Amino acid sequence: MGVQLYSYFRSSAAWRVRIALAYKGLQAELKPVHLLRDGGEQHTPAYRALNPLGIVPTLIEGTQVFTQSLAILEYLEERHPEPALLPRDPVERARVRALALTIACDIHPLNNLRVLRYLETTLGAGPAEREAWYHHWVTQGLKALEVEIARPGWPGPFALGPSPTFADVCLVPQLYNARRFGVDLAPFPALVAIEQACLALPAFAITAPEHQPDAPREAIP
Amino acid sequence: MGVQLYSYFRSSAAWRVRIALAYKGLQAELKPVHLLRDGGEQHTPAYRALNPLGIVPTLIEGTQVFTQSLAILEYLEERHPEPALLPRDPVERARVRALALTIACDIHPLNNLRVLRYLETTLGAGPAEREAWYHHWVTQGLKALEVEIARPGWPGPFALGPSPTFADVCLVPQLYNARRFGVDLAPFPALVAIEQACLALPAFAITAPEHQPDAPREAIP
Repeated sequence: MGVQLYSYFRSSAAWRVRIALAYKGLQAELKPVHLLRDGGEQHTPAYRALNPLGIVPTLIEGTQVFTQSLAILEYLEERHPEPALLPRDPVERARVRALALTIACDIHPLNNLRVLRYLETTLGAGPAEREAWYHHWVTQGLKALEVEIARPGWPGPFALGPSPTFADVCLVPQLYNARRFGVDLAPFPALVAIEQACLALPAFAITAPEHQPDAPREAIP
Repeated sequence: MGVQLYSYFRSSAAWRVRIALAYKGLQAELKPVHLLRDGGEQHTPAYRALNPLGIVPTLIEGTQVFTQSLAILEYLEERHPEPALLPRDPVERARVRALALTIACDIHPLNNLRVLRYLETTLGAGPAEREAWYHHWVTQGLKALEVEIARPGWPGPFALGPSPTFADVCLVPQLYNARRFGVDLAPFPALVAIEQACLALPAFAITAPEHQPDAPREAIP
């Protein structure tokens, strides 16, 4: 059954799904959606028919259409449980999901392209105000994550212990994004250590924005 | 085992958990967290020790602490599968989760108290600009939901069919919130019909903000 992933190289939500697919050894044809070109390809009627909100990613499997990165992660986990990205114990699963949702609900949505654009065009926020906005929400969220994760007895190297979970899958793209916007990550040593552990795994490394077919040459370090 | 829910009567995220608990017939002692009084009780060190980001809800079960409403819903579903708030089929589960996440990630986080407050205090946005911001994100999100749900052949009365799911659990508090901020819901007849079907169920009705012990008298219609 043909699987396609509508993705944008720099979208953290799309990167989450790219990681999960790679980690589970699943193949998907990548369909780039350029979020900036021609006012944003995510707004075309053809793409909106798949994803009415006009955001990436969208996963297609045969005739089925899947939206929302965390819903896609859960679906992949249910269909392809091994290698697992969720622990088995319900309490630990809840903890993983809470960390992932802190990123997916309380950090990322405030700082994505459509919001920064609204701040600029409708509220007239200048570059410094937009940067302050970005830093404010990211820093507040990462602070909470650092506290949540780096509790006494945290074994590392991943957010929940010996193997990566949805929490790591969400964290790595968020840190990449934060760094791109100049957020100081020094106050978050546990999070940065997790990122390093993750990026040593091919599933995280090869799916990074700069290795995407739609990455422009200037995005490649 | 003692279960407590830290809640605020008007928090949509807390209402989601109140609905799930009631729907599954689970008891929890309600611990009100007043988000406005004294600069916000969610910022006290005692509460932050449970919930480092300082948001509601938080569910306590014995010595375990659960944060993030959708992670709590998943946990309750795993521990108490009946009556179910998720279908059994993985494709349908993905659809339910995508609808719930559209609300939890793409509508609600942009419009909660901490964001509206930042717009006011840091960006100097006046009441009209804050209202326009609120309406913009809610309307954009509800439009996508209306399209997603009211597809040809949608059986009703709930978002996914004959019984409520996480999607309905997230939708009802979001519509309540939208109405409170004066959003015109006429363009969303399917969503309003779902809300009516939900509010006919005790689990949705008795957990509404105005029936909460921490609701001030003037919030009661």
